[in-house]
Amino acid sequence: MANKEIPYKIYLEESEMPKYWYNLRADMINKPAPLLDPKTRKPMTAEDLAPVFCDELVKQELDDTTAYYEIPQEILDFYKMYRPAPLVRAYCLEKKLQTPAKIYYKYEGGNTSGSHKLNSAIAQAYYAKKQGLKGVTTETGAGQWGTALAMACAYLDLECKVYMVKVSYEQKPFRREVMRTYGASVTPSPSMETEVGKKILAEHPGTTGSLGCAISEAVEVATKTPGYRYVLGSVLNQVMLHQSVIGLEAKAAMDKYGVKPDIIIGCAGGGSNLGGLIAPFMGEKIKGNADYRFIAVEPATCPSFTRGKYAYDYCDTGMVCPLSKMYTLGSGFIPAGTHSGGLRYHGMNSTLSQLYDDGLMEAVSVPQTEVFAAAEEFARVEGILPAPESSHAIKVAIDEALKCKETGEEKTILFGLTGTGYFDMMAYEKFHDGKMVDYIPTEEELQKGFSYLPKMD
Amino acid sequence: MANKEIPYKIYLEESEMPKYWYNLRADMINKPAPLLDPKTRKPMTAEDLAPVFCDELVKQELDDTTAYYEIPQEILDFYKMYRPAPLVRAYCLEKKLQTPAKIYYKYEGGNTSGSHKLNSAIAQAYYAKKQGLKGVTTETGAGQWGTALAMACAYLDLECKVYMVKVSYEQKPFRREVMRTYGASVTPSPSMETEVGKKILAEHPGTTGSLGCAISEAVEVATKTPGYRYVLGSVLNQVMLHQSVIGLEAKAAMDKYGVKPDIIIGCAGGGSNLGGLIAPFMGEKIKGNADYRFIAVEPATCPSFTRGKYAYDYCDTGMVCPLSKMYTLGSGFIPAGTHSGGLRYHGMNSTLSQLYDDGLMEAVSVPQTEVFAAAEEFARVEGILPAPESSHAIKVAIDEALKCKETGEEKTILFGLTGTGYFDMMAYEKFHDGKMVDYIPTEEELQKGFSYLPKMD
Repeated sequence: MANKEIPYKIYLEESEMPKYWYNLRADMINKPAPLLDPKTRKPMTAEDLAPVFCDELVKQELDDTTAYYEIPQEILDFYKMYRPAPLVRAYCLEKKLQTPAKIYYKYEGGNTSGSHKLNSAIAQAYYAKKQGLKGVTTETGAGQWGTALAMACAYLDLECKVYMVKVSYEQKPFRREVMRTYGASVTPSPSMETEVGKKILAEHPGTTGSLGCAISEAVEVATKTPGYRYVLGSVLNQVMLHQSVIGLEAKAAMDKYGVKPDIIIGCAGGGSNLGGLIAPFMGEKIKGNADYRFIAVEPATCPSFTRGKYAYDYCDTGMVCPLSKMYTLGSGFIPAGTHSGGLRYHGMNSTLSQLYDDGLMEAVSVPQTEVFAAAEEFARVEGILPAPESSHAIKVAIDEALKCKETGEEKTILFGLTGTGYFDMMAYEKFHDGKMVDYIPTEEELQKGFSYLPKMD
Repeated sequence: MANKEIPYKIYLEESEMPKYWYNLRADMINKPAPLLDPKTRKPMTAEDLAPVFCDELVKQELDDTTAYYEIPQEILDFYKMYRPAPLVRAYCLEKKLQTPAKIYYKYEGGNTSGSHKLNSAIAQAYYAKKQGLKGVTTETGAGQWGTALAMACAYLDLECKVYMVKVSYEQKPFRREVMRTYGASVTPSPSMETEVGKKILAEHPGTTGSLGCAISEAVEVATKTPGYRYVLGSVLNQVMLHQSVIGLEAKAAMDKYGVKPDIIIGCAGGGSNLGGLIAPFMGEKIKGNADYRFIAVEPATCPSFTRGKYAYDYCDTGMVCPLSKMYTLGSGFIPAGTHSGGLRYHGMNSTLSQLYDDGLMEAVSVPQTEVFAAAEEFARVEGILPAPESSHAIKVAIDEALKCKETGEEKTILFGLTGTGYFDMMAYEKFHDGKMVDYIPTEEELQKGFSYLPKMD
């Protein structure tokens, strides 16, 4: 324990919590490309998006010039129920690895939703409520986002309708019950409640559903039900804006103790947690005020950054949502059944995609058996049982710490620990029983995914 | 929000964490009655207990004169990974109830084991390790204690053998996998690994086990395996000693802000969390330095305090453990299948029993449907999804706050929120579906339980 004065967990005072979200796009030299209308191929306007999203969220989505958004007091009050989240010095992991590196992680799993998703859920629910809406719809796969949204809606007395991929609905009844505890209605998707659901069920009787289908049902209900809008838990820039609270808190905690990270690591699925963690640090780097290495970690089964193309693509498999320019494997790419459901998205947030394309960020992909081995090693010494998604960051943080051991460098590593693994024990069981396999898509499979990319002439 | 300067969550600094456990027995005027040998009916000596428990823990168990035990540095370091636990001001619940009462809760569920059990698990594992032992055995029902012990043993590199009641082993595979993640071996009980297990299986083929049987197996293995001892997660006074860290932290946090509780409430199964929470406050009350109301909350299905007898009884259904003088329903009393497994114990910690008999503490029993209604109301406004056990305390805290609403009194209420309900969603599901029933034992059932009490002549 080299640095005696740094506690195991750094908690900011309530008065030190961020009062603004940071919109990294405002400080970027090359801005992310705009969303395009899938039919006209013209940039989406606020008017185009208003039937789907609340007005304030549309504004945030399209705004790449305002650097700071004041966090409304009601949201700050909600944040105070589970934030500030601790910045943890991983003394025990350092000791176990016998590394000279100093390892920190920002732990976002200490709330009932079990992940960082709550940071954006409360913001989106708040703006819906403020607009006088009655309720919101969304889709959920594994259930973390749906749980977070249900919690936020219960708090604000807003209706919450969740379309849950049918296979998850059946396999993860506990997640479903948590949402019901928070008063959400949870419908297995595809359902007979929507036109798109009926159509899919007619074409594919007995299907267990997909995230793309659940999105389509949620969007249909939101646009057809008076007083409803649709909300989304990742990928969008508004979500990354809200998630900047992660990075702002982490930076404030480090600044308080005079610590500067050399390497910042996060897992990347849709990109919002990684984007939120790195935002204030990246802002400094772009302005030339500091230098950091940023590493996005993605699953080998779904390597958007490391093996994808930077192109305009559909955000959803149903091809109804706007086109976004991003690193993508193609909206028709179906990743193998990995146990990190939160990272099984074919594309990547457009802001992160631009940063990666500009060489401001690195990316690596890792196979899941190595991820679970790292997760277990971490759990045994640091106590916290990590979510498989978050464990991608753990794996690479350990790798970097071991490199320091070889070279003797005392680097400071910061990574994002976004969630807990309580609801992923079936995956851990497979790992313990030696039944977990790695799957790396072939070139042919990738090419097939790319064939879904829209022609942009 | 009457008291603006008090944050939503009070975290002590690491330097403010308790460095001593408090042994309430030292300050009691009427000491709890000693453990008796079940055969000779003579007080158990350190020698008698040494084959079962580690030496240091035996000392703590028998010691009713030393008021403070210094917490070893290694245990303090482990505590720093998940402590200090927050003292939360329930602003949102107060607002919802529109009560003038000020409600606080000490939240012990924010660690991976999901409960306060970790506070004693690390202590017991530490003393086992220090004595040069190879491993420990224990039993677990729902799995919270087993998980906590597995985590502590993984940290100290100690072997951990858990006998898990077979029905839980099969119904709660996730709990089992968390323990395996922490390197514990988990055996469904009854098993063919022990003499007692073989005997029970021969007599009752196909039995799904019981806690009493699992205890007997764990004790047999501990006493027959060189370098092993048995450890227990509640009921014993050593456990209450370790759990005093809950009350000491809560009191330090309240003192820091000049807050004094009027009423202190905790759920009571074996009694260790309640005992730990109230210990420092009760010490003040006994010395005449302050006055508090203490309320133990137990399930209506298993009302040891409110309908039990104060008598010497067996601690286990197998009748092999020492006799303890306690409020008890009789070791043969089988409580109805409530969803608060952690509170389904026929007896009560001997120290708490003496305090209750001396009129220093009150007790109430509540039916489970009311407990789940309170749990859901709490979850929706305070964010945290509570364990059914902990929700007994929530129920009575809400009742007391509503009484304040009627009378206009601004009382300060403190309750213990000992754990999360992540692994209890099947119970919540029953509640949501209106399938949960209340069961209150009849006088006849109670008399049958009392018939198991040993004759003490």
